[in-house]
Amino acid sequence: MTSLPGSDPGSNMALPGIAAIRAAAARIAGEAVLTPLLESPAVNARLGGRLLIKAEPLQRTGSFKFRGAYNTLAQLSADQRGRGVVAWSSGNHAQGVAAAAQALGMPALIVMPADAPAIKIVNTRGYGAEIVLYDRIKESREEIGARIAAERGATIVAPYDEPQVIAGQGTCGLEIAAQAKARGIRLDAVLVCCGGGGLTAGCATALAAETPETKIYAVEPAEFNDTGRSLAAGHRVANAPGAKSFCDALLAPTPGEITFAINRRLLAGAFAVSDREAAQAMAVAFADYKLVVEPGGAVALAAVLSGKYAIKGRNVAVVASGGNVDRETFLTALQQG
Amino acid sequence: MTSLPGSDPGSNMALPGIAAIRAAAARIAGEAVLTPLLESPAVNARLGGRLLIKAEPLQRTGSFKFRGAYNTLAQLSADQRGRGVVAWSSGNHAQGVAAAAQALGMPALIVMPADAPAIKIVNTRGYGAEIVLYDRIKESREEIGARIAAERGATIVAPYDEPQVIAGQGTCGLEIAAQAKARGIRLDAVLVCCGGGGLTAGCATALAAETPETKIYAVEPAEFNDTGRSLAAGHRVANAPGAKSFCDALLAPTPGEITFAINRRLLAGAFAVSDREAAQAMAVAFADYKLVVEPGGAVALAAVLSGKYAIKGRNVAVVASGGNVDRETFLTALQQG
Repeated sequence: MTSLPGSDPGSNMALPGIAAIRAAAARIAGEAVLTPLLESPAVNARLGGRLLIKAEPLQRTGSFKFRGAYNTLAQLSADQRGRGVVAWSSGNHAQGVAAAAQALGMPALIVMPADAPAIKIVNTRGYGAEIVLYDRIKESREEIGARIAAERGATIVAPYDEPQVIAGQGTCGLEIAAQAKARGIRLDAVLVCCGGGGLTAGCATALAAETPETKIYAVEPAEFNDTGRSLAAGHRVANAPGAKSFCDALLAPTPGEITFAINRRLLAGAFAVSDREAAQAMAVAFADYKLVVEPGGAVALAAVLSGKYAIKGRNVAVVASGGNVDRETFLTALQQG
Repeated sequence: MTSLPGSDPGSNMALPGIAAIRAAAARIAGEAVLTPLLESPAVNARLGGRLLIKAEPLQRTGSFKFRGAYNTLAQLSADQRGRGVVAWSSGNHAQGVAAAAQALGMPALIVMPADAPAIKIVNTRGYGAEIVLYDRIKESREEIGARIAAERGATIVAPYDEPQVIAGQGTCGLEIAAQAKARGIRLDAVLVCCGGGGLTAGCATALAAETPETKIYAVEPAEFNDTGRSLAAGHRVANAPGAKSFCDALLAPTPGEITFAINRRLLAGAFAVSDREAAQAMAVAFADYKLVVEPGGAVALAAVLSGKYAIKGRNVAVVASGGNVDRETFLTALQQG
């Protein structure tokens, strides 16, 4: 792990740099999918710009989360692997950690809310993980997870505020840079779906090193625009209690400490989109790219399609960060979109 | 164009061989998408075999048809290009020809039924093609197309029974062989969605040359199993008049003359699936592969998922041949599936 150039002199946080991301890329090669950068000449003609979609729904487990989970777990010693991994998540991180653990032959225990969608519990169990359900109202998943991890000597993998997780997600940005370069495209901007900020921070670090002239933006749901407001405030701020969005993958309460330390330095800005705009982006991904994108995975695309980011005359990549959406939500989004 | 080894001594048909397919691959490089071979470890575990999906919905225009159209049109002289191309189709071939013509800067005229889904007419026009609508009951699209082509000196591109179209579709098989090899996978079988048989014949020719131990199967809708019955009969037979299927891409009345001459020699057999099985395969493509597949594009996957082809212990690739499905049909399929 290298320190990020320009980090606060007083900061003692270990920020993952480009070397950590390159090492992560070598680790995940052959395990993660090198997802394609999709393009539709017809949509490009409509928009008057060149739009590329990094298709992480096609990633193993249906989202980018496998990258960071595998990169983290692959670095554990044989002894640590034997004692297993513990994580808490109701969604994509759960599946990413469970599948990465399975690929490495190590036990995984995931703490999930008892009212999580049945399909997510079934999928996570399908990757061989042990599931512990908790009551979202009365219990704390962090306490339950930490207690079990301590009892077993297991490793906890945090969903985003963890250097090796960020480095793993950064491989997505590394691939975007390489894929655009191979097609002779100079990227004006890359837009990344942002919850806790791990994917954004990783991609920003990779792209700042590989293609420093490219601007990086975070995109969030309107009521979960904590990264955008934190960038404006210069420090981390929280979302309003009771904020709502159907972008279930992006509901982190605040930016992460490490992720924000990176994002405040490297991002050109942030956009926020409505649920309706995310649904419309899902419909375009369906019709024009034949790709299933979940609500939270569609916000970066939505920022372009809604005109919030002006693509005209530019080359822009957006990350579609995941596709784990149940049938009903997808149908509803398509009907709205 | 080379002659297929083992062709009838008496046959004077020009059958496209592996050299024509390799030449096609060089022609379409950079224009067509090298579509990914998708895999789900979770589905593999459920099936007890290794399943790879060649994702042609991610191809330019949303189906494999761009391959054959571009390969054919790219070989026309400047004079021929100036006089344009004429084709008739209500669906994927229309879009493939229109987009290929647009990419080559030549005019395209497509004869489409007046009652074709509005979205397909809009899409085809979106690729810059001139559209001539005809009355499906009272008029013949072949006559209209042939008359206009004669008036303009334009080139007609047939949807499947045309050597350079078959050679173009064969690039899909060439890619499957190369992608499997790069991942160290020896393919036991490849299953291909089959209408007129162009994609099947092209893929079979490519795979017979590249991986001769791999068995190739055609998969058809139950009421449009003309290739299966023709293989059994040893000569081309037609589907029953009034046969119905929601697999709108696969409704050719009989196998093509050239395509059947190839398929009868190279195929190990054929499977037929019900509309319900195709819908269920669309639902699995949605849930497990995050891929939008149209009904006709899902039949090869359906043959595996329904158990008609026994995948247990085997490595099998299926072609998902297209994803051009309107919202209502997709929603209906997901609700059935």
